[in-house]
Formats: sequence, C-alpha cells, structure tokens
Amino acid sequence: MLKGRNLIDPMDFTLEELEEIFKLAGQIIASPEEFAHVCQGKLLATLFYEPSTRTRFSFEAAMLRLGGQIIGFSEPNSSSVAKGESVADTIRTVGCYADIVAMRHPKEGAPKVAAINSPIPVINAGDGGHQHPTQTLTDLLTIKSIKGRLSNLKIGLCGDLKFGRTVHSLIKAISRYQGNKFVLIAPKELKVPEYIIKELNKNNIEYREVEKLEDVIGDLDILYMTRVQKERFFNEEDYIRLKDSYILDEAKMSIASQDMIVLHPLPRVNEIAYEVDDDPRACYFKQAKYGMYVRMALIAKLLGVR
Amino acid sequence: MLKGRNLIDPMDFTLEELEEIFKLAGQIIASPEEFAHVCQGKLLATLFYEPSTRTRFSFEAAMLRLGGQIIGFSEPNSSSVAKGESVADTIRTVGCYADIVAMRHPKEGAPKVAAINSPIPVINAGDGGHQHPTQTLTDLLTIKSIKGRLSNLKIGLCGDLKFGRTVHSLIKAISRYQGNKFVLIAPKELKVPEYIIKELNKNNIEYREVEKLEDVIGDLDILYMTRVQKERFFNEEDYIRLKDSYILDEAKMSIASQDMIVLHPLPRVNEIAYEVDDDPRACYFKQAKYGMYVRMALIAKLLGVR
Amino acid sequence: MLKGRNLIDPMDFTLEELEEIFKLAGQIIASPEEFAHVCQGKLLATLFYEPSTRTRFSFEAAMLRLGGQIIGFSEPNSSSVAKGESVADTIRTVGCYADIVAMRHPKEGAPKVAAINSPIPVINAGDGGHQHPTQTLTDLLTIKSIKGRLSNLKIGLCGDLKFGRTVHSLIKAISRYQGNKFVLIAPKELKVPEYIIKELNKNNIEYREVEKLEDVIGDLDILYMTRVQKERFFNEEDYIRLKDSYILDEAKMSIASQDMIVLHPLPRVNEIAYEVDDDPRACYFKQAKYGMYVRMALIAKLLGVR
Repeated sequence: MLKGRNLIDPMDFTLEELEEIFKLAGQIIASPEEFAHVCQGKLLATLFYEPSTRTRFSFEAAMLRLGGQIIGFSEPNSSSVAKGESVADTIRTVGCYADIVAMRHPKEGAPKVAAINSPIPVINAGDGGHQHPTQTLTDLLTIKSIKGRLSNLKIGLCGDLKFGRTVHSLIKAISRYQGNKFVLIAPKELKVPEYIIKELNKNNIEYREVEKLEDVIGDLDILYMTRVQKERFFNEEDYIRLKDSYILDEAKMSIASQDMIVLHPLPRVNEIAYEVDDDPRACYFKQAKYGMYVRMALIAKLLGVR
Repeated sequence: MLKGRNLIDPMDFTLEELEEIFKLAGQIIASPEEFAHVCQGKLLATLFYEPSTRTRFSFEAAMLRLGGQIIGFSEPNSSSVAKGESVADTIRTVGCYADIVAMRHPKEGAPKVAAINSPIPVINAGDGGHQHPTQTLTDLLTIKSIKGRLSNLKIGLCGDLKFGRTVHSLIKAISRYQGNKFVLIAPKELKVPEYIIKELNKNNIEYREVEKLEDVIGDLDILYMTRVQKERFFNEEDYIRLKDSYILDEAKMSIASQDMIVLHPLPRVNEIAYEVDDDPRACYFKQAKYGMYVRMALIAKLLGVR
Repeated sequence: MLKGRNLIDPMDFTLEELEEIFKLAGQIIASPEEFAHVCQGKLLATLFYEPSTRTRFSFEAAMLRLGGQIIGFSEPNSSSVAKGESVADTIRTVGCYADIVAMRHPKEGAPKVAAINSPIPVINAGDGGHQHPTQTLTDLLTIKSIKGRLSNLKIGLCGDLKFGRTVHSLIKAISRYQGNKFVLIAPKELKVPEYIIKELNKNNIEYREVEKLEDVIGDLDILYMTRVQKERFFNEEDYIRLKDSYILDEAKMSIASQDMIVLHPLPRVNEIAYEVDDDPRACYFKQAKYGMYVRMALIAKLLGVR
C-alpha cells in the first residue's frame, strides 16, 4: 500500500511496490485520457531550493496531466520560506495548502527531515549529491518498457562512475533483479567507488571493469551514458587520451548490437554526438517521457487515487 | 455586497461584511468539494513585488481549490512590469488578462494606487510595514472558529508590539467586537505605540501592559506570539535579561489555562519552542490553514461567485 | 491548415491563414465560454530566457482561458536548461512534457532553431531585436476589430522608427493589404531604415516622412505611438527640441479626427500623457486585451483543437 508514503531513497519501495508503480505507468501510457482527472482537486507543491528545470517540469507536467494543480518555487531566492525558517516548519505550513510535495534541496537529508515532519507525502526530487529516486524509477521504467524486462540484462555504464549518483542508484536498483551483469566503463580516475564493488561481490553479481567503450559495446543490451567532466581528471594528458572513448558516435554505434538501447539522464554536453540522435536505438528522449509517466504513477499512488 | 470590491486596509469591511466572509469560510471548511469549481474560468494574478512564499502559496492554493487559475510573478527581478512602468499602467494591463489581483509591494500605498486604477478587484497582500489585511482576516477566522466567538475574550499579545503591523491591525480589528480585553506583553523598548494606547483609552477598552509572559499567561484565552528581534534592543544586556520571557515553552504552557490557544503569524524563529508544537493548544499551523480558507471566501466574495 | 505549424516570423502565415486566426479570435471574443475547455488536457510551456512579464502573462492567460495548463520559467537564472544545454536538446525534452511552446530568447534565431528540432509547435515570443510575431498579430486584430478593416487606412507611425522591431513588422504586415498609406513621423535620427523605404517604393505603397506629429495628426485613421528613448539621440539639444513632438497629449488629440484610434505596444514611459487615457480613441489597453484573444486563437489553431 503506497498511499500516504514518502519516496526519499530509491530503495524505499519493495520490488512489489515498484511493480505496482510500473504497472500503473503502463496503463497511463496506454490510455492517458482515463487518468486525465484522477488528481482533480489535488495540489502538488514543488519546493525547489535549487533550480532544476527539467525535473521540475517533469513533476509539474505529471501532476497537470493527472488533472491536479501546482504551487511552488523554482529557486531559493524567490522563496521567503528558504530564509530563516526550518525545513520542518516550512513543510508543516505547506502541508496546510498542498496534498503532496516534491522537494529538491542542495543539502543531503533535507527531504528526509521534511518527510518526518510532514502531514502529506514527500517525494525527494534530488538532495545534493545524495539521492534522486525518481531518476532511478525513470531508468527502471524505461528499461522495462523498451526491453520488456528488468532481469537477465547486460548493462554497460559509461563515463563518470565515481561521482554520478544516478549511476550508483541504478546499480543498486538493478541488482535487486535476477541475472543482470554490469560492464563498468570508466577511466581509472572515475571508477565506481569501492563500496559499490564490495556490494556487487557480496551479492555475487557479475561485473567487469574496463577502460574503453569500443572494447565492450558489441556485447551490451543497454548502454547508460553519463557525462565526463574535464575537471574531474588529474591531468590534461589523461583527459585528452581518454575522452574519445567516452563519446558515443555513429562509428561506435555501428559495432553495437541492433537491440542495444542507449540511455542518458540528460542534460548531455558532448558525450553523445548529435549524429546518434536519429538512431532508433537512441532512447534518451523517450527516457525523459517515461520520466513524466513514472512520476504520474508515483503521484497517483502516493495520493491513493489509484 | 462585496462583489467587485477591493481589500486594501483591514478596516475596509464592516462587521457584517466580515461576518459574511467568515460564514462562507465556514461553509467551505465544512464541504470543500461544493466549492471546488465556483471559480472555474476565473484567473487570479499574484503580483509579488517582494517575495513572500507563504502568503503567495496561501493565495494560490485558495484560488486553485476554488477551481480557478493563476498567473503571476514572485519577485521583482523576474518582472519586466516592475521596471519603469507605473503601477497604474501595470494594473490596467493585468486587468486585461486576469479577474482579480493579489498584490504584495514593498512600498506603502502601492496596492491602493493599483485599486484606484484597476478594472478588477485588488487585494493587498502586504505593503511594506503598512498593512496585511488578509493576515488580520486569518487571525479573526482562526479565533472565531476555535473559540467560537470574537467577543468577551482576554487576549495576550506577546513580543515585539512596537514594529509588528500584524499586532496593530489585530488590536484594531478585535476592538470592534464587544467585551474584549488586551494584555500587552512586551519589553519597554518594544511596547505598542502611543497612538494605539490612545485609541484603546478613547474607546474604553480594557488593557494592561506587562513585561513578563509568565505573570499573566494563566489568565488568557488567547496568546498571540510574535518574534522579538535582537537588533530591536538598545543593548545586549536588556536582550539577554528579557528574551526568555518571550520564549514560549512547556514550562510556561503548564501554567496556562487548558482552554487557552496559542497563535503566531509565522514564520517563527525561536520564540516558540518546538516542544510546544504537539500541545493541542498550539494552533499556529491550524491558523495557516484558516488563512487559506479565509482567502478562498474572500476571493469568492470579491468575484461575486458566492 | 495551421495545425502543427510554428510561428517564428510575422510573415510565416498567408493572408488566408491570418484571416482564419482573426475569425476564430472574433468568435472567442463573442462567446468565450464556448472555448473555455477546448485545450483541456493540453500543456503550454513558456520558456522565457529573458523576462517579459506582459508577454508571458498574455500567453499564460490565453492558454488558461482555453482550459489548458502551463509549465515554464520566466528568466534564465531559474532555469537549469538555460545552462550548458543546447536549445535543440531543451526543446526535445520539453517536447516530452508539453504540447506547445512559447519561447522568448535574447538571441536572434533561437526560436527558429527550436522549431527545427521540436516535436511540438513553437511560437516565437520575441527573439532579441529581431521578431515578435504575436505583437504583430495583436496589432492587426486590434485594427481589424476596431476599424472594421485592414485596408484603405492612413496609418501614422510615430516615435523611434529606426530601432523599433514592432513598427518594422507592422509596416510589412499592413503592406500586404490593399490601399494603405503610411505617415512616418520621426526625428531625422530615428527614421525608418532604408531597406523598408525601398520595399515600400518597390511595392508602390504610398508613404510620407515627417518630423512633427501635430502637422499630420488631423489626417490619420490610426496613430501608432512608440517610445523615443533619450539615449538614441546624438545630442541633448536635438532631444529637447524634438521630444514634445513625440508626446501625445490632449492638445494634439483635439486636432485629430473623431475616428482616429491610438495604439501603443506598451509599456509606455511618457510618450502618451495620462490625460489621454480617458479619451475613447485611446485603444492601447484594449490592444492588450486583443493580444490575449489573438494568442488564444493562435494556440487553438496550432494545436488543431479548432
């Protein structure tokens, strides 16, 4: 039962609860007009203590397409609640006006504090470098919808695997399903943190760590691209030597399987060449759309209207 | 008849008109779903020339819960109308798009200028240190709803009674009802201004001025707390000596009557200890909710839809 | 057929297509309640990379009065999509959430780039000093509605005719109709650019260039006022000598025809004296209202709901 619950950490829900959300998302995708009024009379508050237009749009479009309405702020400056008031007091006041909250905050743990004090469900829309659980739900729904399953997949994760919270959450989330294997494609400087490797080992999950995308791309079901920021490298030479291995282009796509799909949390900078966009395997804009649908399902479930 | 009227000053409405608003607010509280569409097709413009998230949310939630819609800005930077255009021209243009306006402005009197030039009703959502009439309506509705009456009450006002416009407006507003007595609890430096004392005397309204909350709390029906800012004191020693008298905690609540209610316009800083929040007599979050309901009633009345 | 089209340049539509939009606008004006739900379930994204409250309000009010909904940002700071992401990627993502976009951008051509990459219709809401096509539609609808025709009119354009994109677009747009004559009223420093004069000559369109409004006002059907900015003048003396000729006041109105109408794109500074506002020939606030109606018609047409 998801009604009245919060979503703070990507692991907050059981596999059954996730399945419930994905199932509802599927129904919404199949006949959106049936769900166009299920949140009528309900209000979502989008409390964005740091700007994130993409995520905010996704939440707001989700609520509006369910027939609900929005109040909110999109950056701290415009918000007097951001000044001098505790998150606990803010959420208790917003809880007087709204029915559900999506909170983005630069401080780790702020959405958790909000949830503890809130009379209404709180969704973590990203807290610093910590968690961004609706991105993980988006990734899972996208994979499930396009590949038809969340198990027995060979998943390549490519780019900055050290600092990317998106990738860490996705590894944990996918590890809960059977038979998945990871190919971790990153320069030495940006390998996944040790604690994730330990967990993979502990749970007997198969993985490989490699440096070059072209060496493994032919073997993947899913390629999840992330951004490689120049300033993460220790020196210029390493960056220049390695960066091309982390830019996906038509040449690399030509050696990939016809069934492989390319994902990316967006925004991209240059890690996927524009020429790839028209390839039917490029699914990162579809992924953005699934992000809206999974938020629709999530909101409807937490409000208990479906 | 309130249709088409403005609300600029808390004293703009007669007692009968206030009663009309409170009565409608009561009906909305009793069956909100009956009012969920009364403003369908109507637009509220929230023109906030200075940020006030709490007040803006309250207005926007009110309009949305009546089935209306919102356009607006939440701070002057994002507003080209704020630059170089007169308030008179702005309101005449906004009057082409919207059906009613809530205006917050740092300059005293700006909402009045707007109202004079406006083709649509204007609500003052706070003009500098001057007026904030919907806060006064909120306070009155809260008291009436919880205590059952607006007369024959012993009302303690505690904290900064010198600079707080909220308190000044509330004293004037409550003075219009029979048999109310005030206990004005403030340090010497922050006593109510002389003009208010003169008015109380002129109207034969009973009041006491005291320095310490603990001396009088046992005798109050209502305790209205406000913030005491350190920088208002002439010297550090006075602040340290007195500040504890203006912090409401469990110890002080234990000597208060079981029927006393605690109000606060929010946001609080530290003048009410968090331990008080769970006391059933702590009504300041309820008050925020009444603030939304009274704005719903006000908007519906000024638009003439009820 | 306008469904699915973009509006980037004021000349994008044929005269027949413009007529279609004006006809629908007329129907909306006549019975707005019939159109109050035609965009139900549709989302407009207002992407304002530079603030323009007036234009944003007009678009948002238009969409809301059609029963649609809004997502958007009102300035670049609050927008993460504004940072580091290409307009092409932004529009493809926003196209996942919304059904139609209104884009304001400081860079010439940005809305065009967006339109090329967009899965949904894009409306240019102003791109730098370049184009502002919905202002032109507003001007045309206003003239047509009040004067009853878009042909055989004597149109005075007064003020800064050199830098005002509004005026350039209006001249081009009105030149497509039969029998119109222009009186171009501007100081030497701010005359219309040579390329416009050449076009008028090429198309055998009658025009006069004069320096003083009072010399010609008696002869006009329409007087379109624009702002004359002091800093556009080469020297202070010229400015002082000429500025009064570009301020419309009661004295000048008294020598104008009783049928002449005064238009202005707003905001005004001081080029129209406040005393003129009550003259029934002053139509600049009506014009703002027509701006909302023409955007309603445009949105409905591009979405194909009417």
